[in-house]
Amino acid sequence: MSRTAEPTVERVLEAGSRLAAESARFTGLGWMRGTSGNLSEVVSRDPLRLVVTASGLDKGELTAGDVSVVGPVGETVPVEGIEPRRPSAEAGLHARVAALTGAGAVVHVHTLSAVVAGHHWPDGVPLRDIEMLKGIGRLAHDDEVVVPVIANSQDMAELGDRFEASYDRGVPAVIVAHHGLYAWGRDLTHARHVTECVEWLLTYAVAVR
Amino acid sequence: MSRTAEPTVERVLEAGSRLAAESARFTGLGWMRGTSGNLSEVVSRDPLRLVVTASGLDKGELTAGDVSVVGPVGETVPVEGIEPRRPSAEAGLHARVAALTGAGAVVHVHTLSAVVAGHHWPDGVPLRDIEMLKGIGRLAHDDEVVVPVIANSQDMAELGDRFEASYDRGVPAVIVAHHGLYAWGRDLTHARHVTECVEWLLTYAVAVR
Amino acid sequence: MSRTAEPTVERVLEAGSRLAAESARFTGLGWMRGTSGNLSEVVSRDPLRLVVTASGLDKGELTAGDVSVVGPVGETVPVEGIEPRRPSAEAGLHARVAALTGAGAVVHVHTLSAVVAGHHWPDGVPLRDIEMLKGIGRLAHDDEVVVPVIANSQDMAELGDRFEASYDRGVPAVIVAHHGLYAWGRDLTHARHVTECVEWLLTYAVAVR
Amino acid sequence: MSRTAEPTVERVLEAGSRLAAESARFTGLGWMRGTSGNLSEVVSRDPLRLVVTASGLDKGELTAGDVSVVGPVGETVPVEGIEPRRPSAEAGLHARVAALTGAGAVVHVHTLSAVVAGHHWPDGVPLRDIEMLKGIGRLAHDDEVVVPVIANSQDMAELGDRFEASYDRGVPAVIVAHHGLYAWGRDLTHARHVTECVEWLLTYAVAVR
Repeated sequence: MSRTAEPTVERVLEAGSRLAAESARFTGLGWMRGTSGNLSEVVSRDPLRLVVTASGLDKGELTAGDVSVVGPVGETVPVEGIEPRRPSAEAGLHARVAALTGAGAVVHVHTLSAVVAGHHWPDGVPLRDIEMLKGIGRLAHDDEVVVPVIANSQDMAELGDRFEASYDRGVPAVIVAHHGLYAWGRDLTHARHVTECVEWLLTYAVAVR
Repeated sequence: MSRTAEPTVERVLEAGSRLAAESARFTGLGWMRGTSGNLSEVVSRDPLRLVVTASGLDKGELTAGDVSVVGPVGETVPVEGIEPRRPSAEAGLHARVAALTGAGAVVHVHTLSAVVAGHHWPDGVPLRDIEMLKGIGRLAHDDEVVVPVIANSQDMAELGDRFEASYDRGVPAVIVAHHGLYAWGRDLTHARHVTECVEWLLTYAVAVR
Repeated sequence: MSRTAEPTVERVLEAGSRLAAESARFTGLGWMRGTSGNLSEVVSRDPLRLVVTASGLDKGELTAGDVSVVGPVGETVPVEGIEPRRPSAEAGLHARVAALTGAGAVVHVHTLSAVVAGHHWPDGVPLRDIEMLKGIGRLAHDDEVVVPVIANSQDMAELGDRFEASYDRGVPAVIVAHHGLYAWGRDLTHARHVTECVEWLLTYAVAVR
Repeated sequence: MSRTAEPTVERVLEAGSRLAAESARFTGLGWMRGTSGNLSEVVSRDPLRLVVTASGLDKGELTAGDVSVVGPVGETVPVEGIEPRRPSAEAGLHARVAALTGAGAVVHVHTLSAVVAGHHWPDGVPLRDIEMLKGIGRLAHDDEVVVPVIANSQDMAELGDRFEASYDRGVPAVIVAHHGLYAWGRDLTHARHVTECVEWLLTYAVAVR
């Protein structure tokens, strides 16, 4: 693909299909109540393009076309053959996460454990000496991990700045206080696994605090 | 439809089909244990008519015809082609909710979180500065929300009066103490989303109190 | 059916089919971990005959023939065309429950809430002023209900005596301490509903104690 | 099979098929978050050979071929017709468990209850006078059971030594502190049942401590 080419409709729908299935899975776990949360896949690096689940829909009932294509600040990018859907307001943060971390997929879910942990540890959730840390690329022993917690905002630029200021290259997740969890991975399956492991770790931290 | 026309059998069964599917979904979440809870859709505004799930049946196994058509005080309204089923005693409260709020669908479920929250906050459950509040039409910041809690009663007129006295136009839900949750929305899917968000919010409130 | 006639193979397999489906349902709820718990249906009153799920099998994978036919003290009763399966040791208590209460179906499950509640209230779990009490045939207001708790035993005659000594005609359930829950109803669907409501009530009681 | 014969591809795929189904089941229970946990079946005693689920894959999506065949110290054993997959690092502990206990199948899952219980009882989790103990081959009364808790390690030889030092012939499970649970049985179905019962017991112990 040339530098300026936009993703094809096939590429977008392939991503949309995976995002729909993954959203249904997270909905089944109770992590996307209401129409909350959103998932994205990077389909182009330069220019940066993400396919993001559309806003306002039940995340257990998406179809491949229930997505938007967005650029680096979450702005909608038209793709021929794709019906324009309203992207999630949070698409801008997905793009910032993808740009800074190099992730191929970003998950944003409203897991209770993340919000409860953010409540108890507003300066970051410390985790150490737990095997499950290996699931997020860290060591099971003698490795101090802190999941950053950033203040919530409705301004995605502000939220993105807070994310960048808090970003720890060794931690593929951030808690937005009183809001939810962002987690990411090299692709959507990896992002699922990271999300599951972070959720387990936060639930554990809350259980034994 | 003319002002005095009653809903057709097709219209009732369409609603019944949606109510059955939605009831099965809530049953799967554990929010309609036993034969508890009931769901309704408004099918006519003037005169007010609601299709309400029938009483005494397993809410995971309803079919389209397991409904009653009721009027403003929950009284059964005969519809040609619809086998009369016993409406839930709570149909009267559904009708009051629909009349006062303008909702197109009302959900009544026995979520544990609602009853536990009602126990801890008998004067209303205060919620503030939580992103999930957007799921019930409120702001994520600096917006004081109180989910009303009203005393339980077996007299639907009395319960309806308590509901009306407690009603806050900005809160699409009410907890009936020691009983369960009512939540509503412009249609059944919206009512589902409101219910899920309120349930999340109450679970969170209990978890961090 | 004449007084001395034993149930036919068809009658037994019909019951077995219902018991298998219901067991799978309870297994899905996590209430029959391992091979724990057992369900029964009364197929004859005089002589008393129950079809009981067989012992030692995964309760999520039963087939219609995975049952035994037992008499008043849990003894196996041969039925032509039914392969003899080892009845649960607890079949004797099922029979005692059916004989004393007149129930058409008995559910025994190892719900965590029942055992935790039995731990906290060894003399019986008091419940009052909760709407869900209507699901077990009681009033939502001003009606003092106590779910009996009896000491565990491996001797079914002893356990049966304890059950009878503790039996309250108005309460369709008993907790066996450090063991699990028995609940019953006029048929298997009703027994399911009673079980679900009791489980909800006990979970609630533990949550707000 | 002669003493030196390796398992056939059919035997391995049969085991792999069962392991895949069982892994999907445990994933559904939330006990194998991310790519955590692994299951094994013994396919040969002499020489000792286990079929173990492959590492790094989603345990809800395995197919029959997503396995490795390993020997007594977890080393990969080539089998003609089986694509070599990376065995889990923990395969060595599976082999030690199988060798010492005589188990036909070993389950390793990251249940929250096991890690929380290991946190509260670092010297072993005492259990006594609970009916569910019968599900792990013990008595419901007057039988003191202690589920061993061993310190975590990334060195499988060290972890195996700790397991052997802690091993109680009467307890078919061990908690690896800050890590997860190992449980075993005569075959995979039995190992499932033991795992479920241990998980229930640990959840109960945490709930009433």
